[in-house]
Amino acid sequence: MITIPITASRTYEVRIGSGLLEELGSQSREIVKAETAVVVSDSTVFPLYGEYALSSLKKAGFRCLSFVFPAGEESKNAATYLSLLGFLAEKRITRSDLLVALGGGVVGDLTGFAAATYLRGIPYIQVPTTLLSAVDSSVGGKTAIDLPEGKNLVGAFYQPSLVICDTDTLNTLPEDIFLDGCAEVIKYGILFDPTLFSALEESGPAFSREQVIAACVKWKRDVVAQDEFDTGLRKMLNLGHTVGHGVEAGSQFALSHGKSVAIGTAIVTRAAASKGICSKETETRILRCLEKFSLPVRTDFSPEQLAAYALSDKKRRGGTVDLILPRQIGDCIIVPTSVEDIQSLIEAGV
Amino acid sequence: MITIPITASRTYEVRIGSGLLEELGSQSREIVKAETAVVVSDSTVFPLYGEYALSSLKKAGFRCLSFVFPAGEESKNAATYLSLLGFLAEKRITRSDLLVALGGGVVGDLTGFAAATYLRGIPYIQVPTTLLSAVDSSVGGKTAIDLPEGKNLVGAFYQPSLVICDTDTLNTLPEDIFLDGCAEVIKYGILFDPTLFSALEESGPAFSREQVIAACVKWKRDVVAQDEFDTGLRKMLNLGHTVGHGVEAGSQFALSHGKSVAIGTAIVTRAAASKGICSKETETRILRCLEKFSLPVRTDFSPEQLAAYALSDKKRRGGTVDLILPRQIGDCIIVPTSVEDIQSLIEAGV
Repeated sequence: MITIPITASRTYEVRIGSGLLEELGSQSREIVKAETAVVVSDSTVFPLYGEYALSSLKKAGFRCLSFVFPAGEESKNAATYLSLLGFLAEKRITRSDLLVALGGGVVGDLTGFAAATYLRGIPYIQVPTTLLSAVDSSVGGKTAIDLPEGKNLVGAFYQPSLVICDTDTLNTLPEDIFLDGCAEVIKYGILFDPTLFSALEESGPAFSREQVIAACVKWKRDVVAQDEFDTGLRKMLNLGHTVGHGVEAGSQFALSHGKSVAIGTAIVTRAAASKGICSKETETRILRCLEKFSLPVRTDFSPEQLAAYALSDKKRRGGTVDLILPRQIGDCIIVPTSVEDIQSLIEAGV
Repeated sequence: MITIPITASRTYEVRIGSGLLEELGSQSREIVKAETAVVVSDSTVFPLYGEYALSSLKKAGFRCLSFVFPAGEESKNAATYLSLLGFLAEKRITRSDLLVALGGGVVGDLTGFAAATYLRGIPYIQVPTTLLSAVDSSVGGKTAIDLPEGKNLVGAFYQPSLVICDTDTLNTLPEDIFLDGCAEVIKYGILFDPTLFSALEESGPAFSREQVIAACVKWKRDVVAQDEFDTGLRKMLNLGHTVGHGVEAGSQFALSHGKSVAIGTAIVTRAAASKGICSKETETRILRCLEKFSLPVRTDFSPEQLAAYALSDKKRRGGTVDLILPRQIGDCIIVPTSVEDIQSLIEAGV
C-alpha cells in the first residue's frame, strides 16, 4: 500500500494498493466515528464490489445502508441527486454519519456533491473503482452534477475524509473505461513528469498500477494544493481536453472520453510542433506513447467542426480559451487563445 | 450608514442604513467586477423594490436580469432551486457574474445556495428586506433549501461578498414579519448584551433600526467567527427555538416564527427560573420585554404536545438536545438535555 497525504481545506490520505477493499471498514473506522455508513454506487459496480464493501464496513461496526442508481453519465443529474438526498433524509442520516462513494467518476462526483450539501456537509470517503477516477476525480474535492444545459454546471469544492483505491478493482474494467484512465495517466507524464512518461513508453498498458496511480495522485495533489478553487494552475489539467471535448461532442459521445482526450492531445501536440513550441522528437514520443496504449491520434472531423463543438459550451461573449500546449515532456504552457484563433490552431494539428 | 466588517472564510462587509438601496449598484461595483447581475427575489418583495434595485445596478453599469419566484417558505425547495440554476445556465451566467438576493430569509437562503453551487460557486450579495434576515440569515453564510422531510436539510456554508441592509425597506413589513425579527433582536439581548436589552425594554418596537441591527449583526458575527461551521457555540443562537419550533409545528405554522420563538423563550425562561438557574427578576424582565413588543408568552398546547412537536425533527436514536437557558441578561448556558427530560422541563415553564 502507498499512502499519500493531501493537504487542502481538509487534510486526508489517499491509500492505493491491492486488496484494500477488504480493509475499507477498518480504515474508515480509523478516520470517522460514524454510526451509519451509506454506500452509494451504481448498477455496474455494486453487483461487483458492493457486498465486499458492505461486509467490510459491517465487520468494523458500521450500520450499513446502500443506495444504488443506474450506471452512466445520464444518471449524474438533479433527479438522482434529489433522490439520494431524500433517501438520506428519510433514513435520518446525521452529520456524524458517513457516505462511501463506491464507483467511478459519476458515483464520486454525485456522492461528493450530496455529501457537500446534505445538512450543509457530512463526511464522505471515495473508493474509486476506475483508473480515471483513481487518478483524477477522486482527488481534489471537485464534486458536481450535470444540468440539461451542460456537464458539471452545479457542484461544490468539498474534500473527502479518505480515498481508498483498491487496484484489484481495475482488473474488471471494460477496455474503453480503462483507456479513459490511461489517457489521463499519459497526460500527467506530458504535463509534469518525464520519469513517469518514460516508464509508460516502456510498459504500455502493463504499467505498475500502484506506482503509476501514486505518481499521478501526487501530481494532482500538488496542483490542487496551489489552486484548490480552480482559478489558475488547475487549468493545466485540461491538456488535450478542450479539443478532446470537441471530438467527444462531435461523435455524440459514441467515442469514449479517453479516446477523445487522446485525439485532443495529439492535435495540440502536432499544432505545438508545427509552431515550433515543441520539437519534432517530443511530438513523435507523445504520439507513439498514445499509440502504444492503442489510443487514437486522428479524427475525421474537420477543423471547423472541431472548433465549433469544442467552443459550444465555452463561448462566452468574445473571450479567450486557455489552451495547454507541450514544450517538452514534463513542461507545458497555458496559451490564452482567442475564439477566432482556435480553429487555425486545430488546422495545424489535425 | 454603519459598516461592520466580517471575517470568515471570505472577508466582507455588512452595511446598514437608510436609503442604501439607491447605492446598491455603486456599492456592488466596488466589490465585484461582474458584467451581469441577476436579481433574485420573490413575488412580494420584487414589486416593492425590484425596480429600485435594477435601476441602481444598471446605473452602475451592470447588465441586469431578474428571477422572481412565488413568496413563501413553500418556495424554498428543490424545484425553485433547480429552476434558478436552469435560468443561470440558460443565460450563460459565469463565475465572474453576480447574484443579488433581494428579500427575506427564503430569498437569501435559496439564492445563497444557488450561488454556492452554480459552477461550484459564484459571488452573491445579500440585500435583506426583513428585520429577521437583516439580523440573522443574511450574516453567517448558512444557505439552504428545504426537503419534504424537513427544513434546511440541504445547503452549504457560503459567505456573501457584501450585505446591504436598507433600513427603509423594513417600514413596509407586515406586523407578523416585523415581529419575527423583533423576537430575534430580543434574543441577542438576552444571550449577549445587557445594554441592548435595556434599550429594547425602554424603546419597545420604536427602537433605532440602524443601531439595533448593527448591534445584532456584531453579535452574530462574533459567534460565527468562533464557529463558522456550526459545531458548537453557534448553538447558542437557538435560544427559544427548540420549544418555539414545537409551538410553530403544533399550530401547523399558523402561528408566526417570531411569536413561536417568543413563546419558546418565555417557556425556557420560566423553566430556568423555576430551577433557580436565573433569578425571578431576570424572568420578569424577559417576559415584560417580550410583552412590550406585543409578543405572546403563553400557549394552549400541553407540555406533552410541545415536547413531541419539538422533537419530531430532532429525535435521533436516543440522543440529547442542547437547550439554551438564561442565567441572567447577557449570560446564557447550553444544557444538554435528554429527550426524556425535555418534557418535564417544558412542564416547569408553560
